[in-house]
Amino acid sequence: MNRLTKGFLLGAAGLTAAMGVAAPAQAKPVKYVFMMIGDGMAMPQRNAAALYLANLEGEGLKPGVMPLTMDNLPVQGMATTYSANAVITDSAAAATALASGHKTNSGVINMDAEGKVKYAPISKLAHDKGYRVGIVSSVSIDHATPAGYYAQVEKRSKYYAISTQLLDSGFEYFAGGAVKEPTGKKKDQANFYDLAKTKGYTVTQSRDAFAALKPGAKKVFAENPVHADGNALPYAMDAGKDSISLAEFTQKGIDLLQGGKFFMMVEGGKIDWSCHANDPGASIGDTVAFDRAVKVVYDFYKKHPNETLIIVTGDHETGGLSIGFAGTKYGNAIKALQGQKSSYIAFGEKFAALRKAKPELVFDDVLPLIKETYGLDVAALAPYEADMLKAAFAESLLPEDQRDAKNPQKYLLYGEYDPLAMTLNHLVSHKAGLAWTTYSHTGVPVPVSAVGKGAEAFAGFYDNTDIAKKTMKAMGL
Amino acid sequence: MNRLTKGFLLGAAGLTAAMGVAAPAQAKPVKYVFMMIGDGMAMPQRNAAALYLANLEGEGLKPGVMPLTMDNLPVQGMATTYSANAVITDSAAAATALASGHKTNSGVINMDAEGKVKYAPISKLAHDKGYRVGIVSSVSIDHATPAGYYAQVEKRSKYYAISTQLLDSGFEYFAGGAVKEPTGKKKDQANFYDLAKTKGYTVTQSRDAFAALKPGAKKVFAENPVHADGNALPYAMDAGKDSISLAEFTQKGIDLLQGGKFFMMVEGGKIDWSCHANDPGASIGDTVAFDRAVKVVYDFYKKHPNETLIIVTGDHETGGLSIGFAGTKYGNAIKALQGQKSSYIAFGEKFAALRKAKPELVFDDVLPLIKETYGLDVAALAPYEADMLKAAFAESLLPEDQRDAKNPQKYLLYGEYDPLAMTLNHLVSHKAGLAWTTYSHTGVPVPVSAVGKGAEAFAGFYDNTDIAKKTMKAMGL
Repeated sequence: MNRLTKGFLLGAAGLTAAMGVAAPAQAKPVKYVFMMIGDGMAMPQRNAAALYLANLEGEGLKPGVMPLTMDNLPVQGMATTYSANAVITDSAAAATALASGHKTNSGVINMDAEGKVKYAPISKLAHDKGYRVGIVSSVSIDHATPAGYYAQVEKRSKYYAISTQLLDSGFEYFAGGAVKEPTGKKKDQANFYDLAKTKGYTVTQSRDAFAALKPGAKKVFAENPVHADGNALPYAMDAGKDSISLAEFTQKGIDLLQGGKFFMMVEGGKIDWSCHANDPGASIGDTVAFDRAVKVVYDFYKKHPNETLIIVTGDHETGGLSIGFAGTKYGNAIKALQGQKSSYIAFGEKFAALRKAKPELVFDDVLPLIKETYGLDVAALAPYEADMLKAAFAESLLPEDQRDAKNPQKYLLYGEYDPLAMTLNHLVSHKAGLAWTTYSHTGVPVPVSAVGKGAEAFAGFYDNTDIAKKTMKAMGL
Repeated sequence: MNRLTKGFLLGAAGLTAAMGVAAPAQAKPVKYVFMMIGDGMAMPQRNAAALYLANLEGEGLKPGVMPLTMDNLPVQGMATTYSANAVITDSAAAATALASGHKTNSGVINMDAEGKVKYAPISKLAHDKGYRVGIVSSVSIDHATPAGYYAQVEKRSKYYAISTQLLDSGFEYFAGGAVKEPTGKKKDQANFYDLAKTKGYTVTQSRDAFAALKPGAKKVFAENPVHADGNALPYAMDAGKDSISLAEFTQKGIDLLQGGKFFMMVEGGKIDWSCHANDPGASIGDTVAFDRAVKVVYDFYKKHPNETLIIVTGDHETGGLSIGFAGTKYGNAIKALQGQKSSYIAFGEKFAALRKAKPELVFDDVLPLIKETYGLDVAALAPYEADMLKAAFAESLLPEDQRDAKNPQKYLLYGEYDPLAMTLNHLVSHKAGLAWTTYSHTGVPVPVSAVGKGAEAFAGFYDNTDIAKKTMKAMGL
């Protein structure tokens, strides 16, 4: 231990001492554990959602009127998120920290930086001790965060290997997005769905089949009928009734796993994706959808308060979101976001359709779509704002190979996204008093919220690896 | 109570219940209380400072290796900061909330929104009950935050009225920046320093006189010998040895107030100012200087652990700072900030001197100053970055009345600051992987850190008004 870490490692023991209470004697392992991860979600994402909801409710503009279930949990802490080789972690290293309690390099899942030593995630340790295990995500189920709870791979992009490890886990419930590469990168491997049957998994791919799943089902792979971008669930703000929500997948998990002790990880994965894209409406929509899943497990906790532990956190912040923009200064501006009706993905699909229908598309042709999607009336914008949109539109029309997204100056404006959609994401953010600093993750610590048996250990300020360790301790692993 | 606030008001009782411990019986009031306020300081400011220090120490780039004393305090919470009329508070409404426990409109200090009802700050209530009181700030002592602990005015800009209320308070120790208007706005009022003597205050204005202050001094007004911008202390990174540090003012307060029970408020006020100016080096320097003051009171706590309560928080975030910038993506970049040797204020003074010395100044003339202040080699920048600097330089040379800082597009680039200095602040931030979204405050909740007797009440997620209420309760007020 060097002098910098002295005191930082005080942790829960220090807290307990500071609180003037004796540390509890070795307690009975907690029976029901929910690990809820908002990918890319830190304080700004939570606060933006609370602010938006409070404004919708007509409760004025007070972000302190917190309607989020996770904000109401009695124990709140903070956790650092850096990986072994970067201040700004990726989701693979973060999932490894949260699931197995080890730091590793960005890109690696449950192995050391060299890809030699394997780390066992908490879900595996729990399963070995008789806990039933559920893994739920709004993105593809082989994505880094859910994979952190069942796979060990030296590269997060090995989707097929991850999906076969999923089936080998024998865990009782997988639900949410589909797998990305069911027959491998070269499409030359045994089909994932055939393997799933061989391994005894019941696969559901429709709402009806999902509804028919009843307690007693042994091993379930419940895939959302709607495959959106990256085989994920659609953004909550875009989802039709065919799409099963994260809250529904979570409730079903409880229904199926109940009966004995269980561990369930639920990820709101598209909070991250929307924040990479600096899309304020989609970020808030998916944060609220994630919070609805938190509400589902909180309702379960209320029925089993002495046997349940809920932990809610993010794996890192994404986008450098802030509740304040230079142009709106101290103004109460969030109401402007009520005009955004769908995500940049939905906008992109309609924009592509317009371009296909009319090859010689001009800027005025997209004004109705801009109004319909973002609630922005281009005629009412400042001239320099309209100019930004026109320049982005021209850039969007360029063939991919002429767009030069690697040009640093263009990258700052648009990232690697469609220029028009990104400029609209920025503009509607700014009108609503929100702003972003990056298309990547950031290094700010994330809040941790907890309730239930053993929740007190999650107060204070600690590292993301401590979250795994504290949870393992509460479960007697 | 409406449905949105249900559960949010769980607070400490809910936490105690969740932690499975009985609420403590009515305890004896705490003897020594330190309210430490980093103005404009939230998680990003704390994390940027920790990251910078860890990097300086050669400990790698892990922001998790937290050397800040405030991060090591065992109890950590979060607080919302909105004012009665704005999502994004100002420091006057925030100080009112923190000091008296009431929401009011931005701009108002310890009165209701209409300026009719007066609210008593905790320091006044404490003084009435026999606590000695100290007020320390790195900005002018009549600024909104310190004023929140002794004044009641309907407008924070009434500096002279505030300064006379300071003298009427009878508090034992005021220290830090000078007052802004010693003879009033029109310079037609009785001189503040004459009044101070009449009211029995010992005024010190030199390092020697400050050093000579000994326990037993009854009422002290200790002013920093160096008057920097706004009569504040210089930025910590610019301060010479003539300037007394926030930590020294804090230590002297302990020396003078000790002997009976006391309450001390210490504000790191220029964290806010540096963040308004988006100056990363000055922000980190003043956050570290503030943390050194926290270290002073923490060392006192260690000698009196059962009689001391320390609360550390911010009144709001300023600047929308993020530990991540689009251009640096996932790179470990903070090292670039080691090149910044002084604040934008120091740069501005030297830039003005250059302009005075050579009226026909050209861009190349300022390159040495840019290198010396920010560590930036303009020849090594990307062409678009150099162009930004050249455009800013041209803008800086314009007469004030042609600069048009109210032009929304220019405001986004430079705020109301010197265009060249602001562009340099942005550029060095970006090179270091930091970025800002505003020249104003933001609405994100702020961390609260605490240790000592009654500190457990500050765990969880609550409102800034609760900080006053919790502290009053701990002090039996």
